[in-house]
Amino acid sequence: MDLDDILGDSCARDWQTIDPTAVSPVRFAVIGLGWFTRGRALPALEASDVCEPTVLVSSTAEKAKTVSAETAGEQTGIDYDAFHDGSAAAEYDAVYICTPNALHLPYVETAAELGKHVLCEKPMERDSDRARQLVETCEAAGIECMIAYRMQTEPAVRRAREIVAEGYVGEPMAVNGDMSQRLLDRVNPDPDQWRLDEELAGGGALFDIGIYPLNTARFLLDADPVEVTGKVSSSHDAFDEVDETVSFSVEFPDGVFGSCYASHNARQSSGITLTGTEGQVRIEPAFFQDQTRKLHISRGDGWASVRLTKVDQMLEEFDYFADRISGDAPMEPDAAHGLVDMHVMEAIYEGAEGRAWVDVSR
Amino acid sequence: MDLDDILGDSCARDWQTIDPTAVSPVRFAVIGLGWFTRGRALPALEASDVCEPTVLVSSTAEKAKTVSAETAGEQTGIDYDAFHDGSAAAEYDAVYICTPNALHLPYVETAAELGKHVLCEKPMERDSDRARQLVETCEAAGIECMIAYRMQTEPAVRRAREIVAEGYVGEPMAVNGDMSQRLLDRVNPDPDQWRLDEELAGGGALFDIGIYPLNTARFLLDADPVEVTGKVSSSHDAFDEVDETVSFSVEFPDGVFGSCYASHNARQSSGITLTGTEGQVRIEPAFFQDQTRKLHISRGDGWASVRLTKVDQMLEEFDYFADRISGDAPMEPDAAHGLVDMHVMEAIYEGAEGRAWVDVSR
Repeated sequence: MDLDDILGDSCARDWQTIDPTAVSPVRFAVIGLGWFTRGRALPALEASDVCEPTVLVSSTAEKAKTVSAETAGEQTGIDYDAFHDGSAAAEYDAVYICTPNALHLPYVETAAELGKHVLCEKPMERDSDRARQLVETCEAAGIECMIAYRMQTEPAVRRAREIVAEGYVGEPMAVNGDMSQRLLDRVNPDPDQWRLDEELAGGGALFDIGIYPLNTARFLLDADPVEVTGKVSSSHDAFDEVDETVSFSVEFPDGVFGSCYASHNARQSSGITLTGTEGQVRIEPAFFQDQTRKLHISRGDGWASVRLTKVDQMLEEFDYFADRISGDAPMEPDAAHGLVDMHVMEAIYEGAEGRAWVDVSR
Repeated sequence: MDLDDILGDSCARDWQTIDPTAVSPVRFAVIGLGWFTRGRALPALEASDVCEPTVLVSSTAEKAKTVSAETAGEQTGIDYDAFHDGSAAAEYDAVYICTPNALHLPYVETAAELGKHVLCEKPMERDSDRARQLVETCEAAGIECMIAYRMQTEPAVRRAREIVAEGYVGEPMAVNGDMSQRLLDRVNPDPDQWRLDEELAGGGALFDIGIYPLNTARFLLDADPVEVTGKVSSSHDAFDEVDETVSFSVEFPDGVFGSCYASHNARQSSGITLTGTEGQVRIEPAFFQDQTRKLHISRGDGWASVRLTKVDQMLEEFDYFADRISGDAPMEPDAAHGLVDMHVMEAIYEGAEGRAWVDVSR
């Protein structure tokens, strides 16, 4: 992978292992019909050649049917209880879970009982105990479970990762990432949204958006943290249960240092920069959807900025999931991978509370 | 200060208080004739209208005279002992000290005895005890002492600071800065250089280059750290006494979080980004000399990159010093200001050693 390869084939689906025309689409039960599902997930499933939404699950069958009426194809609309009772189970092969974090586990448990594969939004649960139960549930049932880290199938991130893996920037030395937005003032002013409820969310800015630079740093380095610390703060009253802002530091193996920042009260910004002994690669903008991403690459005396064609990140993610369900290649951001982030994020809170670095090298 | 002001007057000497044509030049004794003095400081003094080098001080009078022969104007060349004996004291008004860190204090002591003002390179000494003695020495003698933070008179930094102070990016939320280079592999392969000697330098990458993002963050925010931590590492054998790489985190007042990185073993890179509630300002490249600096500013939906005319940073610094010596305005990066960095940097090492956050809010 070099600059010429990126220019020539920037959005290549290097992960593809199956012929999309030779398989039946993976049929999805879509659980949780909030704005993200309606605005992002369902349009991607509609656009996909290898996935289709066949069952919609919401608080009421009526709501599910209303959303179905706005969705291409035909879907059965059921409520959460009906899902847990196994209703319409013959109509789907996998579930996509996009509910508040603390509700992921029960849907995974039902999916496991029904033998359905799982694509579960991140963070995978509200705490690491429940996340571990989620991992064990999937393992015991022999179902596939992927955590929905859409950056891992974002072409800009994959190209950056390939560049790093092939030594284009030398030995990795440092990673710096950030993601911020004005949640209450610009995105959603509702003080009762579940993201602010510690019981449902488990954490604040760290769990919701800090997980992007954290997980992408892991992915770019192909390494997991060994020690972490951080600081949290909140300024709006609505953030009385969870952090509005987090700054955290990560030590990776071989003395690679990471620093990340996430805030629900800072100007929208997102980027990640990896500095090596010989060069640097930056993705900016990085983490918000519907942005044209740029790779900024330096080596020697030169700097190059490569603008990548914008992809539908959710389509990439769903199609990757279908590829792995239909083929034999391993599903990479699996539940065990997601569990690492849960432990790390809890350790960051522990470090913030105890004003200390916390060992996460288990 | 807004974008129009920057475009119109990007390199304005907003700090200037005296008429340069109405004062006699400040005559400098220049102490320490290493590559930085010869390549950066003396050319700036030669170019200045309000400064002139009149005495050169080195290990031998011969070396001083050799350098003098290559320098415009006339200089008396003396050795360090002669300086301490007060030789040629009538020929200069101020001293510029550019020696290994641990030698700053004795030259300041002599300057104080002789009633000469001081411009002292950063970090101001090898440890905070000696730095405090330096402060007290200057205060007792009633001489002015400025620490040579050239970023504080760099136009790009001053314009960024004005933007921040006037609320152009809203409330400051985070600062992220870095400075790195390949010291041994690209800049100076000598394993015996004083920067690697703990006795002479006091610290490694943090003292030598980490001080740039640290001090510039303080300057942009007009605030001092309240708590810090960090991590250090070294890979080359030559860095067995001091850190080759440092990553550090800073909590400023009002929950503003900073993270900085400095390495003598990473690709040359330097930048500083301040993110506020309403916008962002980044200086990149930021800290190395002889680079054309850019200000990258965002607010609302827009992004602007402003390329500033390159200035001679040492000329700006010397002329600022002369302005303050000749006029009545306060000398801003004074010795007490430098002492804060010394305490903070020692606390970063303490935090790295103890895997903890360290209170520096005194």
